[in-house]
Amino acid sequence: MIRSIEWKGNSIKIINQKLLPTKLVYVNIKTTKELASAISDLTIRGAPAIGVAAAFGVALEANLSKEKSFKRFRLKMEKAISLLSNTRPTAFNLFWALKRMREIIESNKNKEVHHIKRLLIEEALKIHKEDEKICKKIGENGSRLIPQKANIMTHCNAGSLATSYWGTALGVIYTSVKKGKKIRVFATETRPLLQGARLTTWELLLNGVDVTLITDNEAGFIMKKEDIDCVVVGADRIATNGDVANKIGTYSLAILAKEHRIPFYVAAPTSTFDPSIKRGEEIPIEQRSRDEIVKIGTTRIAPDDVNVRNYAFDVTPARYISAIVTEKGILKTPFKKKISSILGRR
Amino acid sequence: MIRSIEWKGNSIKIINQKLLPTKLVYVNIKTTKELASAISDLTIRGAPAIGVAAAFGVALEANLSKEKSFKRFRLKMEKAISLLSNTRPTAFNLFWALKRMREIIESNKNKEVHHIKRLLIEEALKIHKEDEKICKKIGENGSRLIPQKANIMTHCNAGSLATSYWGTALGVIYTSVKKGKKIRVFATETRPLLQGARLTTWELLLNGVDVTLITDNEAGFIMKKEDIDCVVVGADRIATNGDVANKIGTYSLAILAKEHRIPFYVAAPTSTFDPSIKRGEEIPIEQRSRDEIVKIGTTRIAPDDVNVRNYAFDVTPARYISAIVTEKGILKTPFKKKISSILGRR
Repeated sequence: MIRSIEWKGNSIKIINQKLLPTKLVYVNIKTTKELASAISDLTIRGAPAIGVAAAFGVALEANLSKEKSFKRFRLKMEKAISLLSNTRPTAFNLFWALKRMREIIESNKNKEVHHIKRLLIEEALKIHKEDEKICKKIGENGSRLIPQKANIMTHCNAGSLATSYWGTALGVIYTSVKKGKKIRVFATETRPLLQGARLTTWELLLNGVDVTLITDNEAGFIMKKEDIDCVVVGADRIATNGDVANKIGTYSLAILAKEHRIPFYVAAPTSTFDPSIKRGEEIPIEQRSRDEIVKIGTTRIAPDDVNVRNYAFDVTPARYISAIVTEKGILKTPFKKKISSILGRR
Repeated sequence: MIRSIEWKGNSIKIINQKLLPTKLVYVNIKTTKELASAISDLTIRGAPAIGVAAAFGVALEANLSKEKSFKRFRLKMEKAISLLSNTRPTAFNLFWALKRMREIIESNKNKEVHHIKRLLIEEALKIHKEDEKICKKIGENGSRLIPQKANIMTHCNAGSLATSYWGTALGVIYTSVKKGKKIRVFATETRPLLQGARLTTWELLLNGVDVTLITDNEAGFIMKKEDIDCVVVGADRIATNGDVANKIGTYSLAILAKEHRIPFYVAAPTSTFDPSIKRGEEIPIEQRSRDEIVKIGTTRIAPDDVNVRNYAFDVTPARYISAIVTEKGILKTPFKKKISSILGRR
């Protein structure tokens, strides 16, 4: 297992995920501006990891701040929070983590700034540690859904690289393997940014898990031909009715799974549920640069002047989802009541 | 409109489709060995174009042959036919065209070799010319299925570049545009070899057709979000029950279309129907090199040691297909009777 992000006090150490799988390079992030860029350009990615990174970003800003006055300190913190919250619009864990950090400031406004700084760093470290524990629990809960011998399809990367340590969807796989189940993983490459090809295969191989890479186009045919037992994916934001925003292509996979009568599981911490969003249609969907579509690495693959759509995420309606695996347990349909009960005791 | 293949007497002039869209380069093929490589490595591709190329290949071999004895001439021709038929296993038009060329030899075995040579060249030119007419007719027939204003999704490339001139799926689009219909095309990029991104967008732009490039992952979400009216694709081999082998990803698209209640059309000449194959499961599916998956251009996108599946085609069961558009008319479900009647009068 590998750590995608670590707190270093005066910096945040992250893996540059853009360079994997050919190079494993760490970057030391020293300012929130650097961190905002690293989140925007996917040097670090994955909803839970982005949440941790954002918390660390606020802690870093606090740690570096020389302000003594609370008012000026808060202004600086708000600027950092705003910068970080404008990096990526879909993954909810980002906003959830920033909200927790803001609450530390607001609920301690009568304390001295140096004390608040310490509390902010503690809170960020707590979010980091919690994510590790939560993902471990997700893995344990989810592994109960996995047969003793299973061919599992996954999409994008919802592993160590997308979280503090255990992963969500891949956490389910790691725990199943650890329990002695015979698991074969089929990883979709996940265009445009190829997180499946570059990251999921890399971390599964690193951990000795049997993995086969397929193109996104092969998903339907492979479900039929290779007896896929279930699909497990992560999530970027979940509405209170159970609709799930996740990496573009997830919606297609869910439909393909339904047609093949294959269970479709979503694995995510409860911090991915957005209590303010009732239906998937309300989730803001990030659209990214055309360059991600018309170029791959240095290779141009399409004419200069072609129109392009680059939705980074899609929404899978709850009716396609067999279960949502959280640290609080496995939610099955109908989701609405169960989600509101879980959010109540989060 | 552009010609992907032309007969030059002592050579076959083809576009090197591997270099599009960045460079338009023509190659002069001077031997059947060169042609076999060009078909295998997708310098020329598309089921109808491969059929024409194979016929030209036999004609070229005949034209270059100095043999006077029929026996030795036939041996040489059989060697060329065998070489060409071993290039790609799935596209039926290849075998269909080679069969027609063989029949010219067999039914004229009492004629002098120089006469048979002339007949072979004539037959190849006839196949070429016929394909142009047939595709024009497919376009006309298919355009009747297209609404006055339509958003059409297509996969891979079934255009001029895949045929002699008009294209099959794109022929339907060209004719619809010519008839004054307002057409917007959504082209899936079609991993691994990106024929949608590289070829379909290029030729549609060349012909002034409104085209938007999407990743294969976006297909489901775009069907929902951009009100796709129909999907039109080509075919590589069609079984007598209407099951269709086509570029990998077609099966997934057909399922997605069904789920969104979008008509799914296949456009193909009757030379794509294989009378000897009753069900899609019997169609041989080409598996290609792992390099097509783990590298894009010069960019490595996956670890060296990952397992890979690279099915070049998949099979879409007839039940997902709303209509098969041929030069003989539009076939609707149940296909079996209509296909056998059409094959009878082919």
